[in-house]
Amino acid sequence: MEYEQIAAEAKDGILTIRLDRPDRMNAYTFRMREEICHALDRADADDDVRVVVFTGSGRAYCAGADLEMGARTFDPTAHSEVTGEPEDSPDDFRDDGGRLVMRLFRSTKPLIAAVNGPAVGVGATMTLPMDIRICAEEARFGFVFARRGITPDGCSTWFLPKVVGIDRALEWCFTGRVFDAAEALESRLVREVVPGAQLLDRAYEIARSIAERTPAVAVAVTRALLWGMQTEPDPWAAHRIESRALHWAGQSEDAREGVLAFLEKRPPHFGLRVSSDLPDELRSWPTE
Amino acid sequence: MEYEQIAAEAKDGILTIRLDRPDRMNAYTFRMREEICHALDRADADDDVRVVVFTGSGRAYCAGADLEMGARTFDPTAHSEVTGEPEDSPDDFRDDGGRLVMRLFRSTKPLIAAVNGPAVGVGATMTLPMDIRICAEEARFGFVFARRGITPDGCSTWFLPKVVGIDRALEWCFTGRVFDAAEALESRLVREVVPGAQLLDRAYEIARSIAERTPAVAVAVTRALLWGMQTEPDPWAAHRIESRALHWAGQSEDAREGVLAFLEKRPPHFGLRVSSDLPDELRSWPTE
Amino acid sequence: MEYEQIAAEAKDGILTIRLDRPDRMNAYTFRMREEICHALDRADADDDVRVVVFTGSGRAYCAGADLEMGARTFDPTAHSEVTGEPEDSPDDFRDDGGRLVMRLFRSTKPLIAAVNGPAVGVGATMTLPMDIRICAEEARFGFVFARRGITPDGCSTWFLPKVVGIDRALEWCFTGRVFDAAEALESRLVREVVPGAQLLDRAYEIARSIAERTPAVAVAVTRALLWGMQTEPDPWAAHRIESRALHWAGQSEDAREGVLAFLEKRPPHFGLRVSSDLPDELRSWPTE
Repeated sequence: MEYEQIAAEAKDGILTIRLDRPDRMNAYTFRMREEICHALDRADADDDVRVVVFTGSGRAYCAGADLEMGARTFDPTAHSEVTGEPEDSPDDFRDDGGRLVMRLFRSTKPLIAAVNGPAVGVGATMTLPMDIRICAEEARFGFVFARRGITPDGCSTWFLPKVVGIDRALEWCFTGRVFDAAEALESRLVREVVPGAQLLDRAYEIARSIAERTPAVAVAVTRALLWGMQTEPDPWAAHRIESRALHWAGQSEDAREGVLAFLEKRPPHFGLRVSSDLPDELRSWPTE
Repeated sequence: MEYEQIAAEAKDGILTIRLDRPDRMNAYTFRMREEICHALDRADADDDVRVVVFTGSGRAYCAGADLEMGARTFDPTAHSEVTGEPEDSPDDFRDDGGRLVMRLFRSTKPLIAAVNGPAVGVGATMTLPMDIRICAEEARFGFVFARRGITPDGCSTWFLPKVVGIDRALEWCFTGRVFDAAEALESRLVREVVPGAQLLDRAYEIARSIAERTPAVAVAVTRALLWGMQTEPDPWAAHRIESRALHWAGQSEDAREGVLAFLEKRPPHFGLRVSSDLPDELRSWPTE
Repeated sequence: MEYEQIAAEAKDGILTIRLDRPDRMNAYTFRMREEICHALDRADADDDVRVVVFTGSGRAYCAGADLEMGARTFDPTAHSEVTGEPEDSPDDFRDDGGRLVMRLFRSTKPLIAAVNGPAVGVGATMTLPMDIRICAEEARFGFVFARRGITPDGCSTWFLPKVVGIDRALEWCFTGRVFDAAEALESRLVREVVPGAQLLDRAYEIARSIAERTPAVAVAVTRALLWGMQTEPDPWAAHRIESRALHWAGQSEDAREGVLAFLEKRPPHFGLRVSSDLPDELRSWPTE
């Protein structure tokens, strides 16, 4: 697949996915979603990629859905007219932003959002299933759906209250107002605000702190456990599921190496690979 | 219904419900609950009401359950003796504060708590299903149930940890202590503390920020989605439910107007009405 | 049971459980778990114990799992070789830290963690089902599992995001880094940081604020309700369950005393006992 709307570059174990329509403020399209998902599939299969960093080209992160279809932008019947594909029934229709979000959700590699400028609508909601969000001082955020006459997308009604609390989520979605990096920090939507010129360096520093000391497979399982447990109602389920993971992990060569390296006060050299050594449970994670 | 214990006044799209027993510090009664629910029913049916603001008359917000029945105040068997109604079985009995809270929960209009003074017991728990809480510097809060020898009411064991975290909720309910506005702010129980004289003005300012830019129906659906998703275990459910809402919303005239107004850089004029245009799903929301 | 790895001392209604292997930085063993569970069973049965405080002997709280088995420390097959017990199947195996955590979870007495020094691995996760966490300035925390090549233990994938949010939990578990008391406070992992010399005094002060004003049984039920509701998907369930508790509590002699003492402006004298007067529902709480 040739990328037209994103740029993807891997270096030193970190894949940077850059939303890349700077003349359109990186406005979101179905094509952009397909390209991001393709890049994530490749990242999952590539053991040289330990962490994925998302950012935007130019001055925006992502200005939201591309409005080039005008008044019918959000009308699902309009899309079938344009594409010629059969129209989805109300039950079969799936919000495209949500498709992207659920793909990000089941990534085996940690995801870092480095929000360089305005992140609005799906540009904001796509960052919620990412694991760590930092932003530039120039960043702005807006869950503007109501102002466009629509309801929230990207599974954000599930993710956003988990990050910032139900009351903050309600107010942002009711008013649809755009707010600045300071409010994003204070509300814990992002964990750090840095000068724009240092944004990527800081994202890479966090990425390296993950990649340099911890094994890829344990990190992939940890990610699936922590996010997955948000879907489990009780701690007894956690005990069962964690125990299965620990039964597997405790016998692994990475566990032997991790303990030995610690006792010998030397850096560990972990050998397991995400491409071949994930426990089976992780492969059966639901996709819809 | 003639209101005896509340005052309800609508102006400029905002309904103010004032707990109105100032000589009793607005202590809560079954009658007060009936009057609030009646006012909420009218608000849901009245398209001129966009937002509901709650506050108290006099120096208190609500001092909790009226204790005029003395030692048997919380005894369900005492109530049937007084009212002559048959006694509920333990399985059929429903806490009255919880009835109010679940009615607030399914409001189609955003709810703002403007806590002007002490909010104690059910006076505190009734604010938890409201969407935005602000308070005066004079406000005090107390989840005092244990000090009265009883367990928490108003579904607060579900709501309170969602707002302030499980550890803070535990400590407040274990000690039953009354705390001040600064602690309410620091713990995120309220989002702003303002001088008492400015409390209602600030509540109305927030209410207008909702009402002036966003459509009533999208806001009602957004409210139901965000709160409702707190009852859903996983993001796949969110994807299905949000997608159904977006399938409806994306074709609506409000979506066309919202996008056009944005593109034309003018204020939007939304036409859909909560009284007639809510999608069917919202009408089937469970009531118990 | 003779305690070898903990010290347990009750005084003025407060049981202090001290992890007591100071020469091993109180490293965790199966034996330590058995001793803590034994002490908790005794505390539940002893009406003179109102609150349990956990701390560590010497300069550490708990340095995590004892690594004396070296590279096979976390290997479940190694344990059956040592103990001669039959090996658990992957489905039957249960993480030992999780066994401790689930026992702490169903305590009928409030639990306070007074973290005096490093709390790492299971030393950190065992504090998560405790109700209130405070720490000394010298405390350090680390969810270091990935650095040892393993996945998180102690049901922490369920508990940790409930305390500090999903994004912070992910970053700590991805990097496995050890962090200081200031970060623990800022992220709300602990609610207070105090000089080490004042740590236990402050823990006892909080314990007394619970024990002096509130009845043991209402506090036990409140604890079960608040934690239990974290396992319930919706507020309607909360309404049913809280209502059953209130139907019971409202008729109790503690409720009569609580209201009368308040009206008579005198300290209450509550008579119900956890050992004999808990409502039946609480006894049927699942144990696995």
